[in-house]
Amino acid sequence: MGRKIKEVEGGLCAPKGFKAGAVACGIKNPSAERLDLALIYSEFPTICDAVYTQNEVRAAPVRLSSSYIKSCEPRAIIVNSGNANACTGPDGIVKARAMASMTSKGLGLLQREIQVCSTGIIGVPLPLERLEAKFPELIENLDYDSDAAAQAIITSDTRPKSVSVSVKINGAKVRIGAIAKGAGMINPHMATMLCFVTTDAAVSKAELVAATREAVDLSFNRILVDGDMSTNDTVIVMSNGQAGNKTVTRGGEGSYEFREALRWVMLSLAKKIVADGERVTKLVEVVVKGAATNLDAERVARAVANSKLVKCSWNGNDPNWGRVIHAVGYSGARVKEEMVDIYFNGVLAAQNGIAANTDIDRLSEAVRESEFTVCINLNLGSGSFNVYTADLSPEYVDFNRHEYALNVKR
Amino acid sequence: MGRKIKEVEGGLCAPKGFKAGAVACGIKNPSAERLDLALIYSEFPTICDAVYTQNEVRAAPVRLSSSYIKSCEPRAIIVNSGNANACTGPDGIVKARAMASMTSKGLGLLQREIQVCSTGIIGVPLPLERLEAKFPELIENLDYDSDAAAQAIITSDTRPKSVSVSVKINGAKVRIGAIAKGAGMINPHMATMLCFVTTDAAVSKAELVAATREAVDLSFNRILVDGDMSTNDTVIVMSNGQAGNKTVTRGGEGSYEFREALRWVMLSLAKKIVADGERVTKLVEVVVKGAATNLDAERVARAVANSKLVKCSWNGNDPNWGRVIHAVGYSGARVKEEMVDIYFNGVLAAQNGIAANTDIDRLSEAVRESEFTVCINLNLGSGSFNVYTADLSPEYVDFNRHEYALNVKR
Repeated sequence: MGRKIKEVEGGLCAPKGFKAGAVACGIKNPSAERLDLALIYSEFPTICDAVYTQNEVRAAPVRLSSSYIKSCEPRAIIVNSGNANACTGPDGIVKARAMASMTSKGLGLLQREIQVCSTGIIGVPLPLERLEAKFPELIENLDYDSDAAAQAIITSDTRPKSVSVSVKINGAKVRIGAIAKGAGMINPHMATMLCFVTTDAAVSKAELVAATREAVDLSFNRILVDGDMSTNDTVIVMSNGQAGNKTVTRGGEGSYEFREALRWVMLSLAKKIVADGERVTKLVEVVVKGAATNLDAERVARAVANSKLVKCSWNGNDPNWGRVIHAVGYSGARVKEEMVDIYFNGVLAAQNGIAANTDIDRLSEAVRESEFTVCINLNLGSGSFNVYTADLSPEYVDFNRHEYALNVKR
Repeated sequence: MGRKIKEVEGGLCAPKGFKAGAVACGIKNPSAERLDLALIYSEFPTICDAVYTQNEVRAAPVRLSSSYIKSCEPRAIIVNSGNANACTGPDGIVKARAMASMTSKGLGLLQREIQVCSTGIIGVPLPLERLEAKFPELIENLDYDSDAAAQAIITSDTRPKSVSVSVKINGAKVRIGAIAKGAGMINPHMATMLCFVTTDAAVSKAELVAATREAVDLSFNRILVDGDMSTNDTVIVMSNGQAGNKTVTRGGEGSYEFREALRWVMLSLAKKIVADGERVTKLVEVVVKGAATNLDAERVARAVANSKLVKCSWNGNDPNWGRVIHAVGYSGARVKEEMVDIYFNGVLAAQNGIAANTDIDRLSEAVRESEFTVCINLNLGSGSFNVYTADLSPEYVDFNRHEYALNVKR
């Protein structure tokens, strides 16, 4: 953590002027009392930015929200879990719009001031009537309850993910709060990575957009659980300026501190997502150095982090550097085999492309940790990149074998 | 099978003038009597072609063999299993050369007339002395024993893979025989896909090269088990002209029949490799139609066949078309979500990007088969592509968790 960034309580409601709450509508499971509809609301006008999935197949709420934000700074986010409202055709758009409409009426806002998000199973119609039935209760109980919202947005996650920090910027104490969900780049039992960030910092639009894109690039774009990309991935950052700081402008005073804090918040949640990946037992950082270019380093990092064989070996505490180098070899990056060094948690496994003279027990020990790094030095240039990823377990596969037919029949 | 292609007995030795044999050297397991060194020999001069891995990390025998074949038509192939001799540095090259040297002396050939192949664990020194000890026995027993050779080249395969056919070409009966191994694009417990083809057809060099590349492209380049590419993948085709047919020239008389037969042989082995993939329970053909270009169709087919989530659902007999379309969406191909149709074994699962009105039990039935097709029609153009792939099972992961440390300590 940066010197001046301090973790605080409160989640989304740590910043001034943000309310949150949630109710159980029976979308996740009609018979269980699980929270599955959340609302996040700014009592004051905002400056916002949002980043949506790059998948060509985009869920109805993503289509709607990305269109709304073009003409309006959002004041509220309505999110359901248990159903992604993706691949649901015109019916899906109608229902996403109905969610925005309900929310705008309940809060006295314009429909375009609402962001709509959904996460869950793909291709199954959204049971809108269940949301409608509980909606009045959601509005009525809206308070400063970030925990309920964090709980309501998760699907196959084993725990809610939340973080909030305070940091001094331009003479005032500013807070940033955030919640996230996702147990994979796609959360496979359901679908989606979601992250909602609130801040009471006063920030210019240009600075907020630049800071958000940079933070997403260095956090959520660098995690890889199963290599799949969701139809619903969304990150939304809302700032309402209630902290009373002098407005942070692009590259101006306080910009460094604001970006550092936002990055810290997102990276912290990104790591929590990987560590809570479906049936994951390890959090692994793959660090690539010495590549001819940064792009080459990224290719290598992604190939290694995505290899089923490499991930299996991590699950078994096996220091299998041969599988790492074979993924390096097919990554598409410029590689000279006889230059490649590989380290597990700082312990040299391979040097100049062949087995290093390191005791196998020391190597096994390194990968037995629940968190470790795999460092690959190509020794060709100064390009570098890193990603956070996880192992692949038999339990992951077992967990993901059944879904669609079960959900259709429910 | 084409009308005129007839399956026959004999494997590699079905064509005239080819001998084969194998011995147990204790590379796979020092204490077990498992065949692990094979020799394939043409009694007559040959015309050959070989295709090697495109991985930037190439095993020593691949480097050696690809260099030898540039100046010489091979007469023999020496293959060991249990050790890939990959990532073994200069020592690996010395040992691969020693294998070529032993073979050339034993058979009275030039060293450059030998192709050397290895398959097995990466990054562990080849125990050459064990090969040397059994080499005289290998030469002495060389006979027409294709079965022993097929058995000797396998690693984690559960069964040897062999096929041989006869076909009438240019007035003579011509035979093609082949063996293969591999339980993944990389065979992960060990490493490598290997395929050796013999034929007594008289074929010009240009025609043999064109026919081989075409057949590999339509067979081994279209199978995807775990998405990893080996450091040792090799396909070698040897023809010796002993059938007495009028030489098949490029695009000339008999070319169509020869190419069809060679393709049939390779595709048959490619499917056997997928069906025998590690802990695989399904053989799935992914067919993409209606893409804007063939390249787009290939992108879609590979993205779907490579998705861990899609493969998990197949393992669970789950007709999860939502996961299929989400992989279509991130494939990089041009896609209009509302145009996409998806079929499981001919049964419509999704139409125009949303759930089709098909009974879920009929869909579940379709994916319960041990072999089925997934057909994706993008309805945008006339580009098409197909790949053969398999499901992902909990047992696959379990099987691949341990390897390196075990082998180092053995």
